[in-house]
Amino acid sequence: MSIVVVGSVAYDTVITPYGRAEDTLGGAATFFSVAASYFCPVQVVGVVGEDFSETDVDVFRERGVDIQGIERRPGRSFRWGGEYSWNLNERETLFTELNVFEQFDPVLPPSYREAPHVFLANIAPELQLSVLDQVVQPRLVALDTMNYWIEGSRDALVEVLGRVDILVINDEEARQLADEYNLVRAAENILAMGPTAIVIKRGEHGATAFLGGEVFTVPGYPLRELADPTGAGDTFAGGFMGHLARSGEHGPDGLRRAIVAGSVMASFCVEAFSLGGIRNLDEERIAARYRAFQALTRFGDL
Amino acid sequence: MSIVVVGSVAYDTVITPYGRAEDTLGGAATFFSVAASYFCPVQVVGVVGEDFSETDVDVFRERGVDIQGIERRPGRSFRWGGEYSWNLNERETLFTELNVFEQFDPVLPPSYREAPHVFLANIAPELQLSVLDQVVQPRLVALDTMNYWIEGSRDALVEVLGRVDILVINDEEARQLADEYNLVRAAENILAMGPTAIVIKRGEHGATAFLGGEVFTVPGYPLRELADPTGAGDTFAGGFMGHLARSGEHGPDGLRRAIVAGSVMASFCVEAFSLGGIRNLDEERIAARYRAFQALTRFGDL
Repeated sequence: MSIVVVGSVAYDTVITPYGRAEDTLGGAATFFSVAASYFCPVQVVGVVGEDFSETDVDVFRERGVDIQGIERRPGRSFRWGGEYSWNLNERETLFTELNVFEQFDPVLPPSYREAPHVFLANIAPELQLSVLDQVVQPRLVALDTMNYWIEGSRDALVEVLGRVDILVINDEEARQLADEYNLVRAAENILAMGPTAIVIKRGEHGATAFLGGEVFTVPGYPLRELADPTGAGDTFAGGFMGHLARSGEHGPDGLRRAIVAGSVMASFCVEAFSLGGIRNLDEERIAARYRAFQALTRFGDL
Repeated sequence: MSIVVVGSVAYDTVITPYGRAEDTLGGAATFFSVAASYFCPVQVVGVVGEDFSETDVDVFRERGVDIQGIERRPGRSFRWGGEYSWNLNERETLFTELNVFEQFDPVLPPSYREAPHVFLANIAPELQLSVLDQVVQPRLVALDTMNYWIEGSRDALVEVLGRVDILVINDEEARQLADEYNLVRAAENILAMGPTAIVIKRGEHGATAFLGGEVFTVPGYPLRELADPTGAGDTFAGGFMGHLARSGEHGPDGLRRAIVAGSVMASFCVEAFSLGGIRNLDEERIAARYRAFQALTRFGDL
C-alpha cells in the first residue's frame, strides 16, 4: 500500500558541533520519502529549482521513490541554514530562502490520487487542505505542522485537523496548539479538534503517543555518536507512516509498532549529516535496531 | 532482606504553581524510607532537632521503619525552602538552614551493621565513607550525590565510588561527574570509577540505566495532575532499592524491574506535596501502577 507525501525538498546548510554541511540535500518530503521507502512505495509531491542536481534526483530514484509529483520551476530551490548549540538542544536559523517554494501549489499527478495513505508535511494549512481535496478517500491521513502556522494560520490549521486521522507534532508545538503545558491535557485538547491519535515527538527523549484511550511512550535511542539532528522528525514520520502502510494495522497495537519503526529510522538519521544516515540502510539493519529498542525497553513483572 | 539508609530528615517549605507547603516533613532519608518500606524492612540513620514533632515520627512508625538510628539533638531540624518554576522544570532554593544536620556524624546502631543493603543518600562523601566503615560486608551498596560534592569533594567522592555497586544520580550530575555531555560516554566514564551499574534519573523523562553491558530506559509516567516534585528522586531510589532487597535479584533483569518499581513510587510522589502521595499506598495500588508502566511501554515485533 502506497503513501503520498507533500512537503519541502530543499538544500540545507547545517552547522553542528560535529561538523558542517553546505547546500546538502534536505527538506521534510525528502527525509520522509527516503525513510518510508524501506517499508512501502512512496509518491512525493514537491517543487525544486533549476539548480536541483541530478545527483540529488538519484537519491530518490535509488530508493524507488516516485518523483512524478516533483515539479521543476525556474529559479532556485528552497534553501535553509541552521546552527545547533553545543549540546544539539537548541537551533538557530541562519537564513531561509523560500525561492521556488514560495509559489508552491501542490498538484497531484492522476496516479497519486487514490493513494491509501497521505502525509501532509509541514506546509501552509491552506495547501494541506488543497491536497486533501485532490485525493480520493484515503484510508489514513496524517499531518505535521509548526509554530509558524499555529500562530499565523490557526483557523485553517484547525480545519485541516478536523479532516485528518493522526497529528505528528513536537512537544513544544503540541503545547502551543493546545495552549496547555501538561502533555496529557494538551493531547486531550487536540484530540477534541478531530484526530483520533496524536504522536508527540520529544527529540532525544523519544515520543509519546495518545492513541484513543491508550498512552504509549518510547524513549530516544541512547547514541554514543551524534552528527546532525536535521530531518530527524520527518524521518520519524516516514518510518512511522511507512510501517503503517506496510502492516495495514491502524489500531493501537499497529500504531505502537509504527512509532518504534519511526524511532528506529530517526536514530539512524541523527548519526550522519543530510541523508547520510538513512539512504544506505537495509532490512537487516532496520530489524536489528528495532530489536535494540526492544532490548532497551523490556522489563519483567513486578 | 533489610536496607539501611543514611541521609537527611528535614522540614521543607515548598512553593509550586499548584500550591504551597510550609515546614512539612521532607529529607532524602524520609522519602527513601517511606518508599522502600512497601518492599522490605528499612532502618534509617539521620538527625533531627528538638522541634521534630511526634506526628512526623509517626510517619516512620506507621510504615514500620526502624528509627533507632535517628538521633535527636539540641537545636532545630534541618530546614530547606524552594520554589519551582511554572512548568516545574526549574527550582530556586529560597533558603537552607543546616541546623543540627551541620554536625551530622552518622553512627549505626549495632542492629543495623549487618544489613545486606545500604543506601547512602546525598550527604558529604566523607560521611558516606564513614558509614561504609561501619557496615559488615553488605551485599549491595548504592549511592546518591549532588553537584555540591562533585565540585567540592571530588577526591572523597571518587573514593566512595570505588566502594559502591550502584550510583543513582540525575542527568546533570552524571554529566558533571563525568565531564561529558553525551550520556552514553558519561556512563562509560563513571563505570570506570568503580560502580557496576549507573541509574540516571531524568525527571519527567524517566530514567536510563547502564547495567554492565546493557542499557535500559523507562519513561516518566504521563500524569494529568502534578503537585510537587520534591523528593521524587529519593522516592525513586527507595522503590528501586526496596525492590532489589525484596527480590534479591541483582542482575540486569532484577535491576530493570527495580528501576520500574522506583519509577512507580516516584510517579505517586509528585502527585501530592511532602509525603502525601506515598505514605498511604498499598500493594494493590503499587501493582496497578506497575502494570500501567507495562501498558505504557509495550510494543510488538517489527
